[in-house]
Amino acid sequence: MEFQLADGIAVLERTPAAFRALLAELPDVWIAGNEGPDTFSPFDNVGHLIHGERADWVPRARIILAQGTNRRFEPFDRLAHVRESAGKSVAELLHEFEHLRGANVATLRGWALTERELALEGEHPTLGPVTLRQLLAAWVAHDLGHVAQTARVMAKQYREEVGPWRVYLPVLDR
Amino acid sequence: MEFQLADGIAVLERTPAAFRALLAELPDVWIAGNEGPDTFSPFDNVGHLIHGERADWVPRARIILAQGTNRRFEPFDRLAHVRESAGKSVAELLHEFEHLRGANVATLRGWALTERELALEGEHPTLGPVTLRQLLAAWVAHDLGHVAQTARVMAKQYREEVGPWRVYLPVLDR
Repeated sequence: MEFQLADGIAVLERTPAAFRALLAELPDVWIAGNEGPDTFSPFDNVGHLIHGERADWVPRARIILAQGTNRRFEPFDRLAHVRESAGKSVAELLHEFEHLRGANVATLRGWALTERELALEGEHPTLGPVTLRQLLAAWVAHDLGHVAQTARVMAKQYREEVGPWRVYLPVLDR
Repeated sequence: MEFQLADGIAVLERTPAAFRALLAELPDVWIAGNEGPDTFSPFDNVGHLIHGERADWVPRARIILAQGTNRRFEPFDRLAHVRESAGKSVAELLHEFEHLRGANVATLRGWALTERELALEGEHPTLGPVTLRQLLAAWVAHDLGHVAQTARVMAKQYREEVGPWRVYLPVLDR
């Protein structure tokens, strides 16, 4: 499937509602469970997405669009959310994510990007040259990856409780 | 995490809204994409869950609760949705799933299951003896598995479009 801006925005603008539908007012046991040491719980997934709204996708798109002499992105801290989310409730995180994502989607729409702009390049600190089109496609796929991760992490909390059904539920061992 | 009825119901009652948040009014290209021959699209995932509401979880729970002489479940047709969903829109499927799930969760709550009842057994046609507790835990994990699958299948549509980011997006190769 080819990246089309309208298709990508359609996913980006739905992600906060998907997390709200999954997690709002859910019993705490589901919110905090993870897949073991150094893995993300549902709470961590939302916190990580929030940090991305502030530090990753739109700031990097701005660097590409500016086409200055230094087009190298700041490295992204994949664990910044641990510090930033400390002490917050999942309700606060869901609200914060909705707010930030709404503003970022409005910014993205406001740019009314052309094919020429989508082909502009920036420099990822480890991946090297990347286009704006690739960055926006990665933003969408990253969202969906964290929806999938959140649902998978929740499912795994019942890995033992499903008994013999485990063989029919591949998500439990992925 | 130990299965607790209230925790399980909290997930079961949220799943239709999670699918609605992800899929309602989304461009068709996202709805129909899959992972290759004989794999489920987002549309197929909702259709499969609908068939489960009619033929799988609650009917099997009734067999267990009845404790008749024959406690063997009917085999579940994992592809029945292909026939049943033909010609329907995703909007129709989302509505149908909400309606059926709402009724099934009401039935489940109405049973006010005791620990004794959760320990009762039925016979799965291929897995053998299973308890009602295991069936309900599997219902929850199965929901979450299909949320994860839906998001993963969508993400994969951009596997090529993300360019070098693919190495940082494990969902694209899962």
